Amino acid sequence: MKIGFLGLGSMGQAIAANLLKSGHEVWVWNRSPEPAQKLVELGAHAAATPTQAFTADIVFSMLADDKALRAVLLDSGLLAQLKGPLIHVNLATIAVAFAEELAALHEAQGIDYIAAPVMGRPNVAATAQLNILVAGPEAAIDRVQPLLDLIGRKTWRLGDKASSANAMKLATNFLLVSAVQAMSEAAVLVTRHDLPSAALIDLVSTTIFTGPVYQGYGALIGERRYEPAAFKASLGLKDVDLILAAAADVSIQLPTADLIRANLLDAIAHGEGDKDLAVLAEVEEWRTLAAAGQTAPD
Amino acid sequence: MKIGFLGLGSMGQAIAANLLKSGHEVWVWNRSPEPAQKLVELGAHAAATPTQAFTADIVFSMLADDKALRAVLLDSGLLAQLKGPLIHVNLATIAVAFAEELAALHEAQGIDYIAAPVMGRPNVAATAQLNILVAGPEAAIDRVQPLLDLIGRKTWRLGDKASSANAMKLATNFLLVSAVQAMSEAAVLVTRHDLPSAALIDLVSTTIFTGPVYQGYGALIGERRYEPAAFKASLGLKDVDLILAAAADVSIQLPTADLIRANLLDAIAHGEGDKDLAVLAEVEEWRTLAAAGQTAPD
Amino acid sequence: MKIGFLGLGSMGQAIAANLLKSGHEVWVWNRSPEPAQKLVELGAHAAATPTQAFTADIVFSMLADDKALRAVLLDSGLLAQLKGPLIHVNLATIAVAFAEELAALHEAQGIDYIAAPVMGRPNVAATAQLNILVAGPEAAIDRVQPLLDLIGRKTWRLGDKASSANAMKLATNFLLVSAVQAMSEAAVLVTRHDLPSAALIDLVSTTIFTGPVYQGYGALIGERRYEPAAFKASLGLKDVDLILAAAADVSIQLPTADLIRANLLDAIAHGEGDKDLAVLAEVEEWRTLAAAGQTAPD
Amino acid sequence: MKIGFLGLGSMGQAIAANLLKSGHEVWVWNRSPEPAQKLVELGAHAAATPTQAFTADIVFSMLADDKALRAVLLDSGLLAQLKGPLIHVNLATIAVAFAEELAALHEAQGIDYIAAPVMGRPNVAATAQLNILVAGPEAAIDRVQPLLDLIGRKTWRLGDKASSANAMKLATNFLLVSAVQAMSEAAVLVTRHDLPSAALIDLVSTTIFTGPVYQGYGALIGERRYEPAAFKASLGLKDVDLILAAAADVSIQLPTADLIRANLLDAIAHGEGDKDLAVLAEVEEWRTLAAAGQTAPD
Repeated sequence: MKIGFLGLGSMGQAIAANLLKSGHEVWVWNRSPEPAQKLVELGAHAAATPTQAFTADIVFSMLADDKALRAVLLDSGLLAQLKGPLIHVNLATIAVAFAEELAALHEAQGIDYIAAPVMGRPNVAATAQLNILVAGPEAAIDRVQPLLDLIGRKTWRLGDKASSANAMKLATNFLLVSAVQAMSEAAVLVTRHDLPSAALIDLVSTTIFTGPVYQGYGALIGERRYEPAAFKASLGLKDVDLILAAAADVSIQLPTADLIRANLLDAIAHGEGDKDLAVLAEVEEWRTLAAAGQTAPD
Repeated sequence: MKIGFLGLGSMGQAIAANLLKSGHEVWVWNRSPEPAQKLVELGAHAAATPTQAFTADIVFSMLADDKALRAVLLDSGLLAQLKGPLIHVNLATIAVAFAEELAALHEAQGIDYIAAPVMGRPNVAATAQLNILVAGPEAAIDRVQPLLDLIGRKTWRLGDKASSANAMKLATNFLLVSAVQAMSEAAVLVTRHDLPSAALIDLVSTTIFTGPVYQGYGALIGERRYEPAAFKASLGLKDVDLILAAAADVSIQLPTADLIRANLLDAIAHGEGDKDLAVLAEVEEWRTLAAAGQTAPD
Repeated sequence: MKIGFLGLGSMGQAIAANLLKSGHEVWVWNRSPEPAQKLVELGAHAAATPTQAFTADIVFSMLADDKALRAVLLDSGLLAQLKGPLIHVNLATIAVAFAEELAALHEAQGIDYIAAPVMGRPNVAATAQLNILVAGPEAAIDRVQPLLDLIGRKTWRLGDKASSANAMKLATNFLLVSAVQAMSEAAVLVTRHDLPSAALIDLVSTTIFTGPVYQGYGALIGERRYEPAAFKASLGLKDVDLILAAAADVSIQLPTADLIRANLLDAIAHGEGDKDLAVLAEVEEWRTLAAAGQTAPD
Repeated sequence: MKIGFLGLGSMGQAIAANLLKSGHEVWVWNRSPEPAQKLVELGAHAAATPTQAFTADIVFSMLADDKALRAVLLDSGLLAQLKGPLIHVNLATIAVAFAEELAALHEAQGIDYIAAPVMGRPNVAATAQLNILVAGPEAAIDRVQPLLDLIGRKTWRLGDKASSANAMKLATNFLLVSAVQAMSEAAVLVTRHDLPSAALIDLVSTTIFTGPVYQGYGALIGERRYEPAAFKASLGLKDVDLILAAAADVSIQLPTADLIRANLLDAIAHGEGDKDLAVLAEVEEWRTLAAAGQTAPD
């Protein structure tokens, strides 16, 4: 089977490498050529253009954001020239509304569009332990399943409406940022009561809140160490914007997301956008300093 | 060693029973006599008054709330009549400021006051699997440690300032209610996108948010089943009030706690106070109905 | 000059009547015929269809909401059939994005589109004392100005981008609902401190907050009298949704608008949607009842 | 009649000067002596100590904050040495709970305590145009009324519970900061839609929101001019803290006050504490910059 793969950031590269290991013919494309070159060394074929990557049976994409995907696939006229049978598996976390638009546009070309956003960081992708949320035409998913099994630990099937997988992914991301915000507030509470926030994190992450989020982000908050960023605050804002857009699409409010967005904007306004999302804890810290009549450190 | 035990609600009863099992002489007291009677059948001695229960080497208390403890111990004049050596281990979750007041009043009588709030529900208490947060005079804690080992799986020592244990406990409670609020918002997000919220809970509670909180409260939210209440919304409000008081004590804000309090008040105002804390999900649900021009069911 | 007028709700009727008084030939249309009939008795001509109302030099519209305007003007194909020279003056408060869409669509037909949302209730419209926010092609506004002078006390010119007038109108509406929300919170504060909220309103509305908003909505809050509604809570929600959409269009948050929306949804969920916007005060009142362990009255 | 006056900041000085004009014997005291000297030049007597100022029939105080008043009157032992008949008129905006404490302590000494917080800035005080909120023993207020008439335009009587006047004053302050916050949000809304915020302020402050607050703070926001501060952000925080304390006293929440406090803390954390309260507009502005990926100016 011939596989195309577009978008070779740290996630895309790790996933594409796992597809390669199984002996498939994989044609890779990336806007900047270096990441493709690395995969060629592992046996991939370099596609000169996105169009060439799409001359495959199944094409995966993992582009940076909605804008990049729109540029490569729609604004370029590429999708309008494609014809099925072809399966496009979009691994990226994109807006729900954009997923609906893409599903309709693919269907008009006779192409199967599968939304398959993944849960996990690059290191998880590298060990093929991703959780994959998948939705789209059932027969197409059945065909793709063996490939998904090569890159993840489990596939969660969410029906035939592709955008459902994106809505579910955004809901999990919302829970993640909410947990970081809650730990940020809890950290200032215990700190102001003369307890190390690391003690709180140790306590909860080994008892009532096991799992990687409280442990991982908790450690950063407990140590007040936000660099190097595993997940930048500015990318956190992008996610929160997608979450709030998905809420607005159905006329609902997410009050916690609203307050997290405001805090992220505070962090970014004051130069912390490139630090880890866990820097939300510092925004709460600034406020406690100000309540004591002090200013935040530069 | 002679042990006193005041307050035999479902938590107190389970804990006292575990102390009894080890063969200690335990004198139990409760405002209403029935629960004491049950323990007497297991070998306890019934104390006729709180004063009698305090004629022991070590006294545990697990009274319903700050008000009950203040009535029994302070307003009655009991503490003012007591003299050390004596150790009082308060297992209840109380206000940080009240813990500080109690520590000072005990010290004035030459009595060791240990704050030892516990994490876990009655079923966890019954199997002696509580996590115990403990703070107070170190030597006294060393003496009590063998007893704590009889009732919990682990003791977390938090220094010699008793109120620290209460601050830490309230921080964990804050994280708990924040997780319930986050799941409540996430549930309406996926529901409005035509996905069952139970699918979201299943996904996250087996991947990134393992542990009992997301699993337990998540199940209630996923099934929209709030009765019988394991932990009533009205008690949740009491906890949030303690949390916010602990924050106000040190001039900080907890924006998520503020919004949760407002939602709990909404729930209670509309007759849901006796349902489980997870009913926070219905408050968000009401709003989504209203956004569609509908009213909440009676 | 021949004038068309579409939309004869209480506002539209009062405005059209003022145009009639000056002797202009006014062709009126309304979805239900009764209101048009009343104006015919005052000298207006009844237009059988929106199309007929648009066979004029200048057409005013004051339709109920974005949806109604979209149905009458766009979905019907009407605008696509029209040709300039023609001036369309839209008096309604509509979404900023929709105003931009309308401006572009009119321009494509060679028609001048003027946004002219008004400030004031029907009684203000009746006495031609409206404040009119106007934006659009300058020459067209110059031509329309004498008519605007017949219906308002002052025209506020906001440049040639029509949607600017809508953005400005929504900002004033935001200030209005914010003032109502602030009075609602202040009312529970003084009430709980055993002072009549009417005393607060009397104090501020004659000193630091003169003007009709604090006086008018304040009186309703002071008397806890929400019926008959001068401006329904459900319409308040519609306005807040337009405000938040205008904010989202430019990627900003309005935290006060977020919390007002949640409160309005609470009010509507519990059956208060047809009461006056001032019923926001009752939402705060419910919460204070709940904090005292009570439920809201049915 | 012999009058004492403690606290000669810009407000106290202006008020004391008006009492002097009427020919009364006024004994003035201030922590630093210079302001007293100015009044001595106008005919006042310099009191060497607070105690000497209290050897009068009626004593006014206008000290900087709760802490200053507590230091001068309570911690010093002064009040405990005083005996009635004597009337103490406290013009300052203090905490409701502190007012209750003061009323009880004065009553125990047989002294009439009148709370008389004032509305208005120093320039308003200078022209004797203050609005005076007054509560306390009725007969005492009757005796003081002629003096209040010398310093204000109107006295608002709020009953015999002194703290009521403070609760009412804090409610008006809450409405004031809420209006500033609302204008701050509205300003970014119109600015991002390419309209000058000054145009919005001009529009509303001459139509629906007349009165000094929208006009005065609106002008600062419209011009983004926050220095010199007429009312510092740090003092605004002090007021908001008093407001929230008054709310907590009666177990209520003021969600708008919560969000304003967070914004004030943001402003103070980032070095804007000495600028005018209107700098709240810049906090919203920072967020809009951050939403565009930019940082706030230093």
